[in-house]
Amino acid sequence: MYRTHTCGELRADHVGEEVTLAGWVQKIRDFGAMSFVDLRDRYGITQLVTNENTSAKVTETLQQLGREFVIQATGTVRERSSKNKNIATGEIEIELSGLKILSPSAVPPFTIQDDTDGGDDLRMKYRYLDLRRNAVRKNLELRAQVAHSVRNFLTENGFIETETPVLIKSTPEGARDFVVPSRMNPGEFYALPQSPQIFKQLLMVAGFDKYFQIVKCFRDEDLRADRQPEFTQIDCEMSFVEQEDVLNTFEKLAKYTFKNVLDVDLDDFPRMPYSTAMEKYGSDKPDIRFEMLLHDITTTVQNKGFSIFDSAEYVGAIAAKGCAEYSRKQIDELTNWVKRPQIGAKGLVYVKYNEDGSFKSSVDKFYSADDLKGWAEQLNANPGDLILVLSGDKAHTVTALGELRLEMGNRLELRKKGTFKPLWVIDFPLLEWNEESKRFFAMHHPFTSPNPEDIVLLDSDPGKVRANAYDLVINGVEIGGGSVRIFNSELQAKMFDILGFTPEQAMAQFGFLMNAFKYGAPPHAGIAFGFDRLVSMFAGLDSIRDVIAFPKNNAGRDVMNDSPAPIANEQLDELFLQLKKLD
Amino acid sequence: MYRTHTCGELRADHVGEEVTLAGWVQKIRDFGAMSFVDLRDRYGITQLVTNENTSAKVTETLQQLGREFVIQATGTVRERSSKNKNIATGEIEIELSGLKILSPSAVPPFTIQDDTDGGDDLRMKYRYLDLRRNAVRKNLELRAQVAHSVRNFLTENGFIETETPVLIKSTPEGARDFVVPSRMNPGEFYALPQSPQIFKQLLMVAGFDKYFQIVKCFRDEDLRADRQPEFTQIDCEMSFVEQEDVLNTFEKLAKYTFKNVLDVDLDDFPRMPYSTAMEKYGSDKPDIRFEMLLHDITTTVQNKGFSIFDSAEYVGAIAAKGCAEYSRKQIDELTNWVKRPQIGAKGLVYVKYNEDGSFKSSVDKFYSADDLKGWAEQLNANPGDLILVLSGDKAHTVTALGELRLEMGNRLELRKKGTFKPLWVIDFPLLEWNEESKRFFAMHHPFTSPNPEDIVLLDSDPGKVRANAYDLVINGVEIGGGSVRIFNSELQAKMFDILGFTPEQAMAQFGFLMNAFKYGAPPHAGIAFGFDRLVSMFAGLDSIRDVIAFPKNNAGRDVMNDSPAPIANEQLDELFLQLKKLD
Repeated sequence: MYRTHTCGELRADHVGEEVTLAGWVQKIRDFGAMSFVDLRDRYGITQLVTNENTSAKVTETLQQLGREFVIQATGTVRERSSKNKNIATGEIEIELSGLKILSPSAVPPFTIQDDTDGGDDLRMKYRYLDLRRNAVRKNLELRAQVAHSVRNFLTENGFIETETPVLIKSTPEGARDFVVPSRMNPGEFYALPQSPQIFKQLLMVAGFDKYFQIVKCFRDEDLRADRQPEFTQIDCEMSFVEQEDVLNTFEKLAKYTFKNVLDVDLDDFPRMPYSTAMEKYGSDKPDIRFEMLLHDITTTVQNKGFSIFDSAEYVGAIAAKGCAEYSRKQIDELTNWVKRPQIGAKGLVYVKYNEDGSFKSSVDKFYSADDLKGWAEQLNANPGDLILVLSGDKAHTVTALGELRLEMGNRLELRKKGTFKPLWVIDFPLLEWNEESKRFFAMHHPFTSPNPEDIVLLDSDPGKVRANAYDLVINGVEIGGGSVRIFNSELQAKMFDILGFTPEQAMAQFGFLMNAFKYGAPPHAGIAFGFDRLVSMFAGLDSIRDVIAFPKNNAGRDVMNDSPAPIANEQLDELFLQLKKLD
Repeated sequence: MYRTHTCGELRADHVGEEVTLAGWVQKIRDFGAMSFVDLRDRYGITQLVTNENTSAKVTETLQQLGREFVIQATGTVRERSSKNKNIATGEIEIELSGLKILSPSAVPPFTIQDDTDGGDDLRMKYRYLDLRRNAVRKNLELRAQVAHSVRNFLTENGFIETETPVLIKSTPEGARDFVVPSRMNPGEFYALPQSPQIFKQLLMVAGFDKYFQIVKCFRDEDLRADRQPEFTQIDCEMSFVEQEDVLNTFEKLAKYTFKNVLDVDLDDFPRMPYSTAMEKYGSDKPDIRFEMLLHDITTTVQNKGFSIFDSAEYVGAIAAKGCAEYSRKQIDELTNWVKRPQIGAKGLVYVKYNEDGSFKSSVDKFYSADDLKGWAEQLNANPGDLILVLSGDKAHTVTALGELRLEMGNRLELRKKGTFKPLWVIDFPLLEWNEESKRFFAMHHPFTSPNPEDIVLLDSDPGKVRANAYDLVINGVEIGGGSVRIFNSELQAKMFDILGFTPEQAMAQFGFLMNAFKYGAPPHAGIAFGFDRLVSMFAGLDSIRDVIAFPKNNAGRDVMNDSPAPIANEQLDELFLQLKKLD
């Protein structure tokens, strides 16, 4: 037996006991006659001591120790003279009678501490050492805890966790698939699933009634800062339900998990139509931890001689509390900020509503104090506030103003971590027009049911049709999304037609789903949650990379094991493949 | 709301209530004035009735129904005149007041009943209909239940469920990898994991202490009857443990799960060295539900003038209880059975130990009754038993005799389903010599620790070295296997050397693991269970295919969605690949 206790377990109760611990050397302090070693494992840190009574053998072994050596230590638990209240084992220490080096360690490339001196790249290369740091490992423990909590809730509520295949059929809709050449079927390929969408719908046709799975999904997209080629989804589907049933069920799941893992009680989730979210927050995933709503002041500001506003499709404004005293420099900063290509505004108009009730704006030439007072009233602004105005075409300007709102929220520290404000965004448009390819794309996916009231518009004005789709948004982050599904093969065929599939293409790609619908498909609906994102929200982190044990970098590489990598020519031969020459 | 209750929920208590159910039409019986519809969902079957008071509208809708139509039915719960004790809702029926067809159904290609008329191929093509059958869906429900039980035990015992990557680096040791071309890294490939072996060892280096994961693994092998290209593993690893700790922990897990899911109490698991398993059972996965042990009678039978035995390296025998009365035809059958290429014996010698104490054998010419009595004594055979003898080189003959033992166990119905006899097989050889490639292969994998007592043999006689490896065997099926790992980089380097890797090859393939070991690796050990096989054992099934929602056939194809499939040339171009011409 390597140990009698873990390094986080011993308390004053154990004083006098002979124990054996094993773990990593966190720190050594050598004061000649006395030495102290902090021994660390997943469960905590325990202090080992030697003194003038310690055997020469132990003392000699101790001389050889370095940081991160793995050792086994035997000794007697005794009370510490000066307690350490920062650690759970701080009342005791172990007076060493035996010491064995299990594994030596080279000097690690960075310090294994909460505040490490290692840069990002180094820590990714030595991920196994980075994971030794408490702060990092805790995120992964939290991840396991969230998953377990979700599983408990769903299992207790009758959902059957069902594994769906990883080697599936490639479908052209959506993002790019990763593919897997089949040796046994030369020239043919599997795809890795972007989601188990079709399989979970087939499980509903199969009468499973309630399905879930915590499952890896794959997208071969150019990676952005917070994307991973493989990611994890909590994937759910239910039969004989309407949108209302789904929202209720998963609102309960979210409340249960927040309570269970973080001991946070969430209020009932408000519901907001997509159109309101865009108009009031300039985003389909509004952060409602703070107000600072967008106001459409187009009609208020036009026809006063300011040509930029007069020619704009939309003029919108927000009022930032207490920012009327912003300096010239701060305003310039904001102006540059909105002009960045990511935001894309042409310029920024400001109105300072001074504490004394006077106004100072960048458009004083065109608008009187009374005019500006009118704007302030429309925005419910108060003396001391700074009104910020953007103008231009409506779609882009609303979004830019939404981004500016978030930026001001950051500056005013209104987006507090540890405060969780979930809501359901509902009534999404069913279709999005793509100007480039001159066709509609499904905003969620081609299986999303139109709102029954809007089905009449499918032929006349498809862009106006609302979907029975919903997103769960928390603190401005889309945590999950789903929809009521089409369960009628004719309506599904019509959708494929609108999306530009020929009947033959639709049949080739989704034939097995449409065939399945011919044998009695129940009404069904579902949702999928981004598990990595959910966990990073629980952990108060901004990146999903920190809640993934072995993440890949932005080029899709694992720098620790240097993959992907070339494979042997024999492997390629077996797969009936050859590499193209790179020009 | 689509339903107030499920089809398995209503009891005599509900009589008089107005309810709405939804589900599939299982059966319709039309008796003119009265009609009965069995309505089915995942939860059960409820009988709907119409009578002379039923509205014309309902009656008309009812006329349109066919098998597997999805309907919504409203009515009043009333007591049945003749109760059906076979179903949980058998005390009541629903007198219909409303009936709506939610989805019609074409006539299904086979009957949706426990005893279906559908053949294998048809049921795989329409897997979503096959899954509607109670018997099939129950297997998947059981699967979810086993997984949940395993997760509860491991989580309660401090194991952190940690996801490891699916897109990893290809390693040449072991079976063939599936590979995934990387678009962002032209000419390079990911591999899909055959197991998360290296990652779980890295998690031990990272101090995770106890890890588990229920995880998909992949092997591109030619498929045999009960193999799938993707399969699921319960993968576990622990630090600061010896073999004894691992066996104890996972014996508890197995007992917990059998108790929890099947309400079966398992006895303590015996432990059997590999050498005993081979000698006594002719198998490294002995079925110990019955005795009929193998006996080495080589020295007993030699030098009596029977040249076949005299020239054999090994002569072994089993005694089949009560089979002395086997007919000539039955003996011939057995002889042909052992001569099949899968068994490969040259012939079969039998000795009938008749009820009257006399002997009749196929070698009476060479052996006296006293000789045969000596054999019987060695085998503890009794009058009425049939002694079966195989001879030849030891390795093959022992295995063939082990197969014959199982066959006799089947014939004598000694291998009862519902009886579970687990054991640990231990002390496996570390290495297997491969005559073809003239090198040693790791019997488990290259990270398995040799038994410390045998390390001295590593240079002098590697084939004799026992491994610190163990298999969990239940009823003759290998359910899990694992080992204590090497945690010392020099010993690991030596193993790679013995396995024929050059230091450069070892470094290129496993460098990141060997590097990790330089920074303080803890002693660690682990195990992996074949989850599909475990569930099929729980379900009393012989094939893992029946416990997989969407399995592939023996050519690795999903016949439901016809994958794998060709992909577009543009996709190949993006991946810098082209297909080779097939000759």
